[in-house]
Formats: sequence, C-alpha cells, structure tokens
Amino acid sequence: MKVVISGGGGFLGRKLAQRILLDGALAGPASEAREVTELVLFDTMAPPEAETTDPRVSTVVGDITDPGLVGEVIGRDTDSIFHLAAVVSAGAEADFDLGYRVNLDGTRNLLEAARALPGTPRLVYASSLAAYGGAVPETVLDDTPITPETSYGAQKVIGEYLLSDYSRKGYLDGRGMRLPTIVVRPGKPNKAASGFASGIIREPLDGVDMVCPVTPDSRMAIMSPRTVIDCFIHMHELDANKLGASRALLLSGFSVSMGDTVEALHRVAADRRLGRIEFQVDPQIQAIVDGWPKTTYSARAEALGFPSDSNIEDVISAHIEDELS
Amino acid sequence: MKVVISGGGGFLGRKLAQRILLDGALAGPASEAREVTELVLFDTMAPPEAETTDPRVSTVVGDITDPGLVGEVIGRDTDSIFHLAAVVSAGAEADFDLGYRVNLDGTRNLLEAARALPGTPRLVYASSLAAYGGAVPETVLDDTPITPETSYGAQKVIGEYLLSDYSRKGYLDGRGMRLPTIVVRPGKPNKAASGFASGIIREPLDGVDMVCPVTPDSRMAIMSPRTVIDCFIHMHELDANKLGASRALLLSGFSVSMGDTVEALHRVAADRRLGRIEFQVDPQIQAIVDGWPKTTYSARAEALGFPSDSNIEDVISAHIEDELS
Repeated sequence: MKVVISGGGGFLGRKLAQRILLDGALAGPASEAREVTELVLFDTMAPPEAETTDPRVSTVVGDITDPGLVGEVIGRDTDSIFHLAAVVSAGAEADFDLGYRVNLDGTRNLLEAARALPGTPRLVYASSLAAYGGAVPETVLDDTPITPETSYGAQKVIGEYLLSDYSRKGYLDGRGMRLPTIVVRPGKPNKAASGFASGIIREPLDGVDMVCPVTPDSRMAIMSPRTVIDCFIHMHELDANKLGASRALLLSGFSVSMGDTVEALHRVAADRRLGRIEFQVDPQIQAIVDGWPKTTYSARAEALGFPSDSNIEDVISAHIEDELS
Repeated sequence: MKVVISGGGGFLGRKLAQRILLDGALAGPASEAREVTELVLFDTMAPPEAETTDPRVSTVVGDITDPGLVGEVIGRDTDSIFHLAAVVSAGAEADFDLGYRVNLDGTRNLLEAARALPGTPRLVYASSLAAYGGAVPETVLDDTPITPETSYGAQKVIGEYLLSDYSRKGYLDGRGMRLPTIVVRPGKPNKAASGFASGIIREPLDGVDMVCPVTPDSRMAIMSPRTVIDCFIHMHELDANKLGASRALLLSGFSVSMGDTVEALHRVAADRRLGRIEFQVDPQIQAIVDGWPKTTYSARAEALGFPSDSNIEDVISAHIEDELS
C-alpha cells in the first residue's frame, strides 16, 4: 500500500514515518494489515537524507497550496494519508493570508485529491487544542465548546468540519485528533509560547541554561512524542464507525507543573550535568499560558483505546532514550 | 450609507430590503442612525421590478462565486452587508461542489471584499439550525454542541468560524445568527423537508388542499418572517462587544405542533373558506423531522434583546396581513 504524510519533513511527520517503516504494515481500508510498499514524505522541506535511504521512501518537496501538485502526490494509488502539514499558530497569526492558504486551502486540496481516488482512503488529520479559546475551563472535556480565538485554531476547526462532511459523503474516511502540547520537542527552541515546556527539559539535558518564563506552579496539558505517534497509528487502524458522525476527537493530555517537571528532571537525570534552570516570569507569556487548559480528558478517546501519558518522569526518560543516546 | 444584501432577490432578502427602505436609516459603524442612500440587492435572480422602483435601490444579478464581481459590488464605499445568499440544504446535499463553491467560497469572497474596504463594515450573516445534527436534544440551547450532519450545515458553521476570525482580526465587524425554520414562507411549496410547516398554513388560506406529511403531534422550532427581519435589524444595530469573541448567535424558535397549528388556523381564519388539511405520514419526512430540535432557546439572544415569537395565532395573523391583503 501507498501512504502519504503531508508535513513529512517536520518533527512529528518524520517520527511517524520512522514508525510506519518499522511496523512495515498498516490496516487501511482492507482492515487487515497490509505491507507498506511506498511512503511519500510531502513537505516544503525535505527530511534529513539519512532518514530517506529506505527504498520504500520517496520525498516530494513542494507546496500543498498547489492543487495540481497535491493531485500528483496523491495520484491514483494512495491508500492512506496522514495530514500534518500546517502553518503553525504564530505563523498563521502573523500572516493571515498564508495561514488560510496553507491550513484551509491546502487541506481542501488534499481532501479533493483523496476524493478523486478510486477507493476510500483513510485520512488522519492533526488538529489542535487551539480549537478551544476564551474562557476555557481548567479541564477540557469532550463536550467543551469549540471556540478558537486564533486563526490557526479557526483553520484547524474548519478542517475538522470538512473532514466530517467528506467522510459522511463517503468521499474519504477521515479521522481527526486534537493534539495536546507535545513535550519534549527536540531541536532548537522556537518562538512558540509553549516552547518553554519542552525547553525546560531539553535545554538543561543539553547542558544549556534555561530561563522558564512562567511560574513553577504553571501547569499545561501535554503528551509525549511516543504517545502521540501511537495515537496516530491507533487512529488510522480504528474502525471509523466507532467515531460516529463527528470525525474529530480530543486527545487526553496529562497535567504537569513546571516546578514538578524540574524536580522530575533532577531525579531522572541525576547522573548528568544539567544546565541551570531559572524562573523569570514574562508577563505576556504567563498570561497566554494561564488562558490554556491545564489538562484535557477525553472519555471518548479512552473508550476507543487511545493511549495517554501519566507521569513526567517517563516522558523525560523516553526523550533521553530517543534523542540523546 | 451604502448597504448590500446578498441574496437580495430571495424571500428574506426582499423583506429585509423593504424594511430597510421603510426605516430609511441604520446605525452602522458610526453607531448613530445614518440615512441609507444606496441599497444594492445582489443575487442570481432579480427581485420583482415593483420592489426596485425606489431610487435608492439597485440590483446586481450575478454570481457570488466570482471574486471580481463581489469586489465590484462591495466597491470602496459599502458600510453594511447582510449576507443571506446560499445554496439551500437540499441543493447543497445534491451538488456537493456547488454547495462549497457558493456557501464557502462565496462567503469568503464577500469577507475578503469587506476586508478590503477602508472602514470596518458590519456584516450580518444568516446561519442555520443545520449547525445541529445527530442526537440533537429536544431543546437546543446556547451550549448545544455544533455537529452539522449536512453539507449545508457544515458550510454555514464554517462561515461562522470565518466570521469570528475576520472580526477578531478587525477586518470587519461580523454578526451571525442561526435561524429557526421560518414560517410562513410565502410562494409555491418547495422541496424542503420543512416545507409543510409553512404549507399547512399557506395552502389552506389560498383555498388549496394540503396533505401534511407528519403526524399532528410533530413539533418544530419556528420563527415568523416579521420577527426574523426584526432580528436582522437588531443584530445589525447591536454593540458587537456584547457578542464577545464568538460572533454567532442562536435565535429562539418557539415550539408548535402541526395539530395546534391547524386548530389555530381555523380560529384565526374562521371567516375564510379554507382548503382541506389531511394528515398522511410520509415515513421519510417524519424521520427527518423527528430528528430536528422541537424548540430552540438562547438565553444569550434574550439577554441581548432579540425578539422571538410566542404563539402561532399571531404568526398566522401576520401572514394574512402581510401576504393576503
């Protein structure tokens, strides 16, 4: 079977690709495991060459806003699609037109290419907690109203409704997931307001000093890279009838404070020379983070067998194992 | 000030136009009443000539999916927009591409033309109870989840999220309303599953026999044409800060059974020779109607001073006064 990952050059797309190559098979529409013979990584940036030496992998560097190119990438023979490509929150806020072009029009290009396939491809869609905004409750639940207050959030939510409608019409078999903040993201610190939640673990482990811009008791709803990749695979393999008409699902992110994270880091990495961590509140970032949900819990996801994380020690250990060894 | 009504050739658009011409003024961004000097009725079909003799009125017959034309209609001088144009529920279900072209792309064309204006135009958007679907509660409330199960519903909901996002960015001042079923719609019976709710009043009053395809105890959430036009004006004049970040508002539709409607009709029109009414259940239509909310109540709309109807006698009397005299 042929699998396409949009955003296949990004952090999660690359991890997902490695996992699919390792598993070697996915269920897909046949509902029995089939060998993955072709994996296309479609992104504006290519993944590192070392990750594309597998003969099953091909990369397409190009723009999802080009319907002709998207049609070529999907072709007539794609069985499954993972749609992760997006202009992220800050980018979509800074450039309104770019955000709608990529996150809305790009998604529609992909949905249309999927609709044009002779079969009914599975399409797993990465949505976001940015679907929630304004007076968000401490714990976001399955029935928490969808009130995005960023363009990125609006675009992700619109994508969810498109996904459900295309699925209802039988044009594709869509499955969307609202991802919590992913911790630990590897790589360099970025400008995201949530960046410190990864940085507070990643930077000290790299021997780099870290300034945390929020108070130690600030809490966030997080999910580890390993667990979110498990969720992507689980969502792909699921019997879609269990999702019902609404094809978008909240994922459960566990709650952790930055103070507890630092303590756990010192326990887990007692044998390492860690960079220093200092708390120095940036009122702007503190205000943004205070507006976010402290935890997300989806009874629906739990009933459907989706995994979640439960303690920060394991998240830190997994990061050390996956990224630092 | 210049006002544009998309869908200005349709039933509600024409009523709204007559009301605006009668009032002669709207508040708009100036927040004090300003004379309406130009009223543009934009639709794929022209309103009857008799309704366009007012020197303030101009009509543009054309397609909202043409961004160039929409840009011309809005021009550089529009102060307020009422966006009613849409491919209706059955049409959007029958022609998926047409529905998205008109209801999504057309709406985006209008939002973009509004954004390009030098000022911040008010834009009142007609959304729909089609935003709710699946296991809808008997009474739809402000916090009932948004779960469209038709393409029309998905498109209307997507328009709401666009409206809120464009408003948040300050590109326009959007206000959306989810309309209940409007009763009594004048004119010929149409193919809409809800058509009987108007037909059961309109046809007998016209001396025409009527077959009602649902049981007498079947109830619907309705609003009269007079009240919905009041709501459009009220929504336009409202201080948008009172709406908050989510610019879409549920309207309260009162609940009436078809049996009670028939009894009320005989009371109100005792002096008229009425066509005969027969109940003959069409299982398909009965099933559709059974899935609709029986009533909608918006505490938010009530607090904001939006009117609603309260009894079917008044609705019938108003129809006789407005359409039959």
